Amino acid sequence: MDNIDTTHVLTQTVDELSSKESLKGLFHQHREGYPLPSSKALEEIIELARAILFPGYFGKSTVNIRTIRYHIGVNVERLHKLLTDQILAGLCFQNTENSEDCESTFKSKSNNAEFIATELIGKLPQIRKILATDVTAAYNGDPAANNFSEIISCYPVIKALTNYRLAHELVLMGVPLIPRIMTEMAHSETGIDINPEAKIGHHFTIDHGTGVVIGATCIIGNNVKLYQGVTLGAKSFPLDDKGNPIKGIPRHPILEDDVVVYSNATILGRITIGKGSIVGANIWVTEDMKPQTKKYKKL
Amino acid sequence: MDNIDTTHVLTQTVDELSSKESLKGLFHQHREGYPLPSSKALEEIIELARAILFPGYFGKSTVNIRTIRYHIGVNVERLHKLLTDQILAGLCFQNTENSEDCESTFKSKSNNAEFIATELIGKLPQIRKILATDVTAAYNGDPAANNFSEIISCYPVIKALTNYRLAHELVLMGVPLIPRIMTEMAHSETGIDINPEAKIGHHFTIDHGTGVVIGATCIIGNNVKLYQGVTLGAKSFPLDDKGNPIKGIPRHPILEDDVVVYSNATILGRITIGKGSIVGANIWVTEDMKPQTKKYKKL
Amino acid sequence: MDNIDTTHVLTQTVDELSSKESLKGLFHQHREGYPLPSSKALEEIIELARAILFPGYFGKSTVNIRTIRYHIGVNVERLHKLLTDQILAGLCFQNTENSEDCESTFKSKSNNAEFIATELIGKLPQIRKILATDVTAAYNGDPAANNFSEIISCYPVIKALTNYRLAHELVLMGVPLIPRIMTEMAHSETGIDINPEAKIGHHFTIDHGTGVVIGATCIIGNNVKLYQGVTLGAKSFPLDDKGNPIKGIPRHPILEDDVVVYSNATILGRITIGKGSIVGANIWVTEDMKPQTKKYKKL
Amino acid sequence: MDNIDTTHVLTQTVDELSSKESLKGLFHQHREGYPLPSSKALEEIIELARAILFPGYFGKSTVNIRTIRYHIGVNVERLHKLLTDQILAGLCFQNTENSEDCESTFKSKSNNAEFIATELIGKLPQIRKILATDVTAAYNGDPAANNFSEIISCYPVIKALTNYRLAHELVLMGVPLIPRIMTEMAHSETGIDINPEAKIGHHFTIDHGTGVVIGATCIIGNNVKLYQGVTLGAKSFPLDDKGNPIKGIPRHPILEDDVVVYSNATILGRITIGKGSIVGANIWVTEDMKPQTKKYKKL
Amino acid sequence: MDNIDTTHVLTQTVDELSSKESLKGLFHQHREGYPLPSSKALEEIIELARAILFPGYFGKSTVNIRTIRYHIGVNVERLHKLLTDQILAGLCFQNTENSEDCESTFKSKSNNAEFIATELIGKLPQIRKILATDVTAAYNGDPAANNFSEIISCYPVIKALTNYRLAHELVLMGVPLIPRIMTEMAHSETGIDINPEAKIGHHFTIDHGTGVVIGATCIIGNNVKLYQGVTLGAKSFPLDDKGNPIKGIPRHPILEDDVVVYSNATILGRITIGKGSIVGANIWVTEDMKPQTKKYKKL
Amino acid sequence: MDNIDTTHVLTQTVDELSSKESLKGLFHQHREGYPLPSSKALEEIIELARAILFPGYFGKSTVNIRTIRYHIGVNVERLHKLLTDQILAGLCFQNTENSEDCESTFKSKSNNAEFIATELIGKLPQIRKILATDVTAAYNGDPAANNFSEIISCYPVIKALTNYRLAHELVLMGVPLIPRIMTEMAHSETGIDINPEAKIGHHFTIDHGTGVVIGATCIIGNNVKLYQGVTLGAKSFPLDDKGNPIKGIPRHPILEDDVVVYSNATILGRITIGKGSIVGANIWVTEDMKPQTKKYKKL
Repeated sequence: MDNIDTTHVLTQTVDELSSKESLKGLFHQHREGYPLPSSKALEEIIELARAILFPGYFGKSTVNIRTIRYHIGVNVERLHKLLTDQILAGLCFQNTENSEDCESTFKSKSNNAEFIATELIGKLPQIRKILATDVTAAYNGDPAANNFSEIISCYPVIKALTNYRLAHELVLMGVPLIPRIMTEMAHSETGIDINPEAKIGHHFTIDHGTGVVIGATCIIGNNVKLYQGVTLGAKSFPLDDKGNPIKGIPRHPILEDDVVVYSNATILGRITIGKGSIVGANIWVTEDMKPQTKKYKKL
Repeated sequence: MDNIDTTHVLTQTVDELSSKESLKGLFHQHREGYPLPSSKALEEIIELARAILFPGYFGKSTVNIRTIRYHIGVNVERLHKLLTDQILAGLCFQNTENSEDCESTFKSKSNNAEFIATELIGKLPQIRKILATDVTAAYNGDPAANNFSEIISCYPVIKALTNYRLAHELVLMGVPLIPRIMTEMAHSETGIDINPEAKIGHHFTIDHGTGVVIGATCIIGNNVKLYQGVTLGAKSFPLDDKGNPIKGIPRHPILEDDVVVYSNATILGRITIGKGSIVGANIWVTEDMKPQTKKYKKL
Repeated sequence: MDNIDTTHVLTQTVDELSSKESLKGLFHQHREGYPLPSSKALEEIIELARAILFPGYFGKSTVNIRTIRYHIGVNVERLHKLLTDQILAGLCFQNTENSEDCESTFKSKSNNAEFIATELIGKLPQIRKILATDVTAAYNGDPAANNFSEIISCYPVIKALTNYRLAHELVLMGVPLIPRIMTEMAHSETGIDINPEAKIGHHFTIDHGTGVVIGATCIIGNNVKLYQGVTLGAKSFPLDDKGNPIKGIPRHPILEDDVVVYSNATILGRITIGKGSIVGANIWVTEDMKPQTKKYKKL
Repeated sequence: MDNIDTTHVLTQTVDELSSKESLKGLFHQHREGYPLPSSKALEEIIELARAILFPGYFGKSTVNIRTIRYHIGVNVERLHKLLTDQILAGLCFQNTENSEDCESTFKSKSNNAEFIATELIGKLPQIRKILATDVTAAYNGDPAANNFSEIISCYPVIKALTNYRLAHELVLMGVPLIPRIMTEMAHSETGIDINPEAKIGHHFTIDHGTGVVIGATCIIGNNVKLYQGVTLGAKSFPLDDKGNPIKGIPRHPILEDDVVVYSNATILGRITIGKGSIVGANIWVTEDMKPQTKKYKKL
Repeated sequence: MDNIDTTHVLTQTVDELSSKESLKGLFHQHREGYPLPSSKALEEIIELARAILFPGYFGKSTVNIRTIRYHIGVNVERLHKLLTDQILAGLCFQNTENSEDCESTFKSKSNNAEFIATELIGKLPQIRKILATDVTAAYNGDPAANNFSEIISCYPVIKALTNYRLAHELVLMGVPLIPRIMTEMAHSETGIDINPEAKIGHHFTIDHGTGVVIGATCIIGNNVKLYQGVTLGAKSFPLDDKGNPIKGIPRHPILEDDVVVYSNATILGRITIGKGSIVGANIWVTEDMKPQTKKYKKL
Repeated sequence: MDNIDTTHVLTQTVDELSSKESLKGLFHQHREGYPLPSSKALEEIIELARAILFPGYFGKSTVNIRTIRYHIGVNVERLHKLLTDQILAGLCFQNTENSEDCESTFKSKSNNAEFIATELIGKLPQIRKILATDVTAAYNGDPAANNFSEIISCYPVIKALTNYRLAHELVLMGVPLIPRIMTEMAHSETGIDINPEAKIGHHFTIDHGTGVVIGATCIIGNNVKLYQGVTLGAKSFPLDDKGNPIKGIPRHPILEDDVVVYSNATILGRITIGKGSIVGANIWVTEDMKPQTKKYKKL
């Protein structure tokens, strides 16, 4: 950068990149005092949640039955604080987008954020209970699994579902943006992409997992099992009169209880796969399947 | 290691692993004073580029319109320095491989590296402009997307394309190795594998993304959309007389403007998918498709 | 948390989450003085192993031929120590699960752990040798590869195979849990999921890799090549009289030498794909293929 | 901790240490949402201030004349934010002590904190100007000094005075606690203990510095020089009727312009050392010295 | 290092520095599995102890009265573990020196270390109580002190005494090396050098502190106050017949209750400064002082 | 910073602080590609040197006699690299000051830096040998010392002398700035301020150390012992015709072999303290002392 031309290029580029036109729509302007969605904070939230839900498997693991209350206490307090901040960040972030006045509603949003964080904390025992069913399902469904420890320690599905089940609760309480970031973090870590708006029953499992996609309006029953590469997607989406997709319409499949979907199968559209059905590998399904149906690829 | 035998095994193994024969072809010998490709430096490069291109979404986010020039200025200067180093690392790394004399050409390579880094900085406004079209395409193409903030903050496609578009510019300026490391970093993060040599138009998007492969000689037009698991690959590659694949021959598909390819479709070979065509999910395509053609799986 | 109700919810939740019923099966109780499986330690193990096997490409890279013995010496010593700890952690972790008395056998487990670590160190030269064949296979199989440096530096298959080949040796020596965590780490990083119990010959490669699954009882010969999204899975698994899958039965494919499997193909069950056979993309195979057979999708 | 007794001791100790009686006067209870004095934040404040005041000597030093405005801009913005927080922490911390209601005044304190931070930023050019005279004084007074760079880079007096001059401005604006922490940080780093309430003129220097003490009500003129181990202390302090020292009474020396005090001299009480006087090493002074007086130890 | 000569010098120096003769007496040989005195671990021990003794002032400070038990519980457990390790390190480190066989006694040392750690934990409430008297003494003795918060947050004497009072307990329980490292850490931080073997009563304080030295066989009563630069040292020490100082003989002063010693005074030898005496600044005292005596410098 | 006035103040202050007049003499302008004196690099240099000179006491301590050569080899190589950089930084830093053209001489400076670094490495065995005598002196001189381990692990004098002895060698080879920063680092850590230009013989020790000052032109013989607070300073320094002190004139004391100086004694000017003399505590000496003289304070 000792060269005149280099300096010139750099300075001019800085000016150009700082201009309003160049920034339009790509710049999030921060307001002093407002928390921001922070991937670092969200990573810590996930780590804390895992340490609380599966003590001894995640987090600083030297817990024993006599000291566990201290550890969970400290972790829950920290989690509550970080959640309050990030939920508030989500509530305000959206507002900025919508050009509303956030300032006037800051106090109420702030109270709301703390309320939601408290609610989520209160649901942790229940979330642990349903995750326990997912651990059981993973163990029962995989002959290669040696014990629960192995499932909890290293099966990607447990990581993905922990993020999803927390994020889904936040969706139900109206928190924007943050739940999606949480499931995308699991997507990056495991290759499993679950939209936090999807509804998923208990005893759910996914084997291997890479490439699985579960769309926003999916409804999945209990005891369902997916394999890697399965897509539960939309077939098409109605456009509005400007040619843009209409948001919010149910467009992803319903899987009833006890369904199994083998690897790389693609199930598209608001169809229903009936209770106990089996969808074979590499299959393309766009129509309802009655209960107890099996559909395999013809060779 | 207090045991005689342990010591013996360890010492002997160190000797064996340090021998020339064992190291042959697997050891990169460093020359004093030469920068090395560094994944840590490249991660910082990517973070800086994201912070510059999408201020407030990445990087330390407390920027506002009054101070943004300071932030971009500092980031651009740091980016220029790191890029110069890593580009030089790429230029010298290759040389070592080829057993040429790097020393004699070090000064010219060094100047060249700084020149290329400056050029890339100068192209950032343009890169931001085309990424803005990609953000728009992602938003328009996904009914689940609520706003631009969500797209920029958490859609994997934006991360993959930011890396690709930077890496592709480096390819065009003749930088070896470094662009490939950059796209592989995105591959690891998002499951989207775009070879930096591929050519990709504006308003490009990929939904979900895991498992997508875009080969080195692909040419992709404008307004193209892919879904997860799509392969744009080579069908076969001619061998030279020693039986090794001949490098550099066009062998991947051309996708013209407005093409859509659904999940897990596989398109192989130097074929052309005509403007506005649609390729259905789980399809295997090895021949040209005329413009406006639709090809779905038969059930 | 200044609010009475918040405090009440938090305190009560801590109590609930600390109760024995809630923790049942999801809590790993630590015993003082016993090492624990640690993802941080295992990451360092992988980094050290990569730095030892491919010096100059991974690790602090300023090694040259005159100082390499110092670097490998320090790295081998550190690797031995970390391996001893983590292997012991694996041996004890399992025990806790099985409610056996670990204490009484701690000393012998501890000696065993060090013995296994030493054995693994002693096998590193051999592991480097077979990985060298994998590098060659990746180079020969990809026209986009410019040189060995590029393969070693950034091809995901090399990262996945390094983890697998180390983990597989640990499996052979009876180490529980740890090998699986190691291959899941590669799974997360590369999207390639290789069960550490699988057997894989030399000159093995996987192109792109995302979504590949290689099951626990697979047997893969020499010179085999897979593409992204390939599943080598189980077709079904016999249930015991309680309806649970019976563990340990051979249920994944055998691929003989020189087999090629193209992208997203799914091969299921204990079948044999004969020497030199080619399996086309997006194919579903559940029966034996004779040597030199080709099987492509019909369009 | 596997032992019953250990557990018992630990649990009981935790209970005891958490009891109100044990905590009395030694526990700072935090209120949610209030910033706390943070040694980490204050260290960053000092680093930023040094980087702004002496660019290229402290901080990330790759600044040049063309990019310096970017760097100072980013640093000033960050400094403003951290100062606002820490000043507010100081204002609220005191309140907690005094058992006042902080909540009701939080908004006004918060505004006040930002106002003071802005004022301090506005005084930085002036602070740099006076520190420049201190650098000159250090250079002129030490035959061992080779150039200004050496003074700025490594003379402890410059570090101690930078902290003091910033802290003193905060004292003048009524900030409690924080200024004292800042000068104690310099005390720990340099062995020079300057109370932030002391008044010190320009061209001030201290050679070597370890053990120097400058009390709260000291008034020091211009061009004064001290050596290591000099105490400017109180001789005695009047007690109130309860036998406690009365706070706020002038009790430390006045040093007029051009005074020199040699090593380990002790000057006690509200006395005046007249302009141009010289106080010899290891001397004990408790009475006024007229201008131009010299006082040496008799041997 | 590309130069032949450089390589030669480096290699030869490494050999020389690794030779037994060169290493003699300066090399601590490590035994596998034994903990080592670790300045990092000891720093964490000090931080934990401060956070436990003065909650809200040190450590992560967001504690409140409802959650304090969780925080103290986690900190006490961690402190117990670290102490056990470091005490064991001290016990074994010494042994190596004395060329005894450590292995055979490792188990008993290990139990002993845990026992001592537990004892120290059990004494924390009492240590807090006496430190509370030191805080009071510092507040009463300094007209510049505004409140207890300021004393606890930033007075060096509190830091030095916290380290000393912990270290002294370890001395009483026979732990070698570790206590001395702990007080040297405070020496480096505050300039106050208290030998951990010294005996010091309650309500003890040191103003400013830099340069204070308190020797190993000192006995200090209650309500004693020192100023900066005070030495409580040995006048001379009897030599054994080889001319080496005889260890363990009482050789430092006794200060009875209510003594005050002003700055830079030097008190040498096993003399007694009687109750309520005052020693003036820069004074040299080598003989007993009767109770209520005052000794000032003659000018 | 949302307030107009705040923005105004900040922006204006940034402009003012970036102006040439304000920066004059206080700004070190960096040239691209030149290393800078870095306190972080120098800290690593000191840590490496300590780990090399006293293996097992400093650095990662798990060395044993069989692996020590690996550890020293890696540390020596890293030390050589860091030293080369920092020596070059020193050589160029000075130049900038003197407004010479550094660029033209960069290559020769760079070679010179590497040459000096190599020389220093070559002297390490000798430096270790003399430090061993200092350890012995500290042990023999302190009845409180229990063994060599304690001296090496925690006596401040060993840390101060390690820095000094390295820095002094750099002074002898003409390196500017860097040696002074190294001894100031020890000054901050230990309170012992030794100018790197001073000459100091073998078997040198300082007890406690805080406040000791050893001036640039001091000459100290063998077997000399100092106590805390001792100043070996200049009495006065001749001024040139502009009234500035003349640099480089011998102005500090000469201490011949076997001299002992007790605490807080002040010895000023180019005088000679004869062989075997003893200087009592708190004494002020400005004239020669004949060999074997004792000088104590009269009470």
